[in-house]
Amino acid sequence: MGGQGAAGELFAVRWLPAGEGGPAVRLLDQTVLPSRAVTLDCASVERLAEAIASLRVRGAPALGVAGAYGVVLGALAGTGAEVAAATLTAQRPTAVNLGWACRRTLAAGPSAGDMLAEARRIEEENRAACAAMGRHGAALIAGRRRGRASLLTHCNTGMLACQGIGTAFGVARTLWEDGGLATLWVDETRPLLQGSRLTAFEAAALGMPHAVVCDGAAAGLMARERIDAVVVGADRIAANGDTANKVGTCALAVLAAHFGVPFYVVAPTSTIDAGCPTGDDVEIEQRDPDEVRLALGSVRLAPADSPAHNPAFDVTPARLVTAIVTEHGVAEPPYTASLARLAPAS
Amino acid sequence: MGGQGAAGELFAVRWLPAGEGGPAVRLLDQTVLPSRAVTLDCASVERLAEAIASLRVRGAPALGVAGAYGVVLGALAGTGAEVAAATLTAQRPTAVNLGWACRRTLAAGPSAGDMLAEARRIEEENRAACAAMGRHGAALIAGRRRGRASLLTHCNTGMLACQGIGTAFGVARTLWEDGGLATLWVDETRPLLQGSRLTAFEAAALGMPHAVVCDGAAAGLMARERIDAVVVGADRIAANGDTANKVGTCALAVLAAHFGVPFYVVAPTSTIDAGCPTGDDVEIEQRDPDEVRLALGSVRLAPADSPAHNPAFDVTPARLVTAIVTEHGVAEPPYTASLARLAPAS
Repeated sequence: MGGQGAAGELFAVRWLPAGEGGPAVRLLDQTVLPSRAVTLDCASVERLAEAIASLRVRGAPALGVAGAYGVVLGALAGTGAEVAAATLTAQRPTAVNLGWACRRTLAAGPSAGDMLAEARRIEEENRAACAAMGRHGAALIAGRRRGRASLLTHCNTGMLACQGIGTAFGVARTLWEDGGLATLWVDETRPLLQGSRLTAFEAAALGMPHAVVCDGAAAGLMARERIDAVVVGADRIAANGDTANKVGTCALAVLAAHFGVPFYVVAPTSTIDAGCPTGDDVEIEQRDPDEVRLALGSVRLAPADSPAHNPAFDVTPARLVTAIVTEHGVAEPPYTASLARLAPAS
Repeated sequence: MGGQGAAGELFAVRWLPAGEGGPAVRLLDQTVLPSRAVTLDCASVERLAEAIASLRVRGAPALGVAGAYGVVLGALAGTGAEVAAATLTAQRPTAVNLGWACRRTLAAGPSAGDMLAEARRIEEENRAACAAMGRHGAALIAGRRRGRASLLTHCNTGMLACQGIGTAFGVARTLWEDGGLATLWVDETRPLLQGSRLTAFEAAALGMPHAVVCDGAAAGLMARERIDAVVVGADRIAANGDTANKVGTCALAVLAAHFGVPFYVVAPTSTIDAGCPTGDDVEIEQRDPDEVRLALGSVRLAPADSPAHNPAFDVTPARLVTAIVTEHGVAEPPYTASLARLAPAS
């Protein structure tokens, strides 16, 4: 399997039925990419929780699907669906889709069969949502520019983060398939390098034109007018449009505003947290300082006795976001009104 | 030796006389820090040129001193001082101090003894200039703030980049010795990690309060008002104040302007290139893409077949620089006038 389907297609999460070696949640272990493609079958909630906490599976929409199947696993494996939902949700507090998908799957119970059907619906909805975001986003970029556009993206938001083509990466891919992409600049995204390890791996697998840059190189590229738009995903979008995403995103938004480059957030409406009025209310996960002090857990980058500060996310203020692309269409400022229109509070 | 003198003091470059195993230029090999402290004695111009090209010695002022002693080595070793100066200068085209120090040492010839005396003068002037920059910069920061200040710095500008206490790092160190430093935030500075490997190593050796952050984390720190000033060095300052420095510097300047944080460049007047009117005239060195694709030459971070773009420097426009701290005092905008006053064109 090796996480590879049709030529260049990859997957992050799949349900493995009883007849095929399950019940289990099959993951492509993203911590060892790009050196190795290893699949991991999680037959218990504990194993899946560890995989989520250690980022073997990551990316907001993929986390939602993993959580949904994990709740089913809990129902089948004796852990209990409620305990599974609580355990899995607690692993990544900033990722709103994770808790959302767990709750939705739980509500389809108590039958494990009904919960599995609901988890499959979440997966299929994600796939369709990515395709729609790709169309909306590519049209937005193509409509504002003659000739092919060069995009800059951060972190990983493609097939390994989602079901289907992805969010921000899906926009770049759709634009490329339409003949409108010059180059996708890929921020390496320290400390865990989801850009260089995962996004570049996806782009290379598909044959998309791309180049990896260090996170600090974006300003120089923008100053030389080599970037036409920035496209990023989101882990949580507040009701006013403030966007929590991978650390480094806010800097790109400030740079984009400074250099006059449009800055687009691409995310399914499940990422919008109507109960969170502004970005000030978003909890920022602090992770292990050794993610900063060591490269991928091995090579020493900083002295062991030097403190390191390792926030996983930052919050981009809504005023720096040119537009938010969702599966239901494009939201523009003021976001409190436009987001509520696209994703009515339930 | 291990690059360590008095407690916590380190050196980048020393002249090794004939009586002590020379003539040679002794370096602390910065490519293996912080894991190992290894000294390297370069007895030939070729060996020194390789060490400069591969960043075993780096930092604009230290490169100047290395170049000066390298010219002496050329005169003594038969390579010839002129050939030595040309060879060494060509290794790092953006670092103005390197060519400047080589030319100055050459001009003191043809006697090798006179050139050695001149190289020693350059070293001592650097040491005194660092002390003066430290005083000017610390006074500037302390004068604008009550209580202790937290600074953010990029790359390495301390004892390993200079003779003496360093430029931007020397300002932080002087402020600390005066009781005015809360914390020095250290950008790791990808791709070669001079911040986490070298600056954190120096801060830890001295016992200065510090914390390493990934380059993408600066915006989040500034948004939370945890940074009172940014202090950076410079590889080349154009006559109008545009500043070429390690890639990632321009982004910090844009962020600092956005968040209302003062942004200070700290550099000796030898870094000012009066013959270079603006930053548009600065040549940006492009380095090996594998510096981006591999961590310190070993761990794979990006697919081998993914292109990578690796500019060593970027240019920060003068309008984003709050002040330039030199050994002769502090220059404020408009820089064309203030820099010309501090460093009259020769």
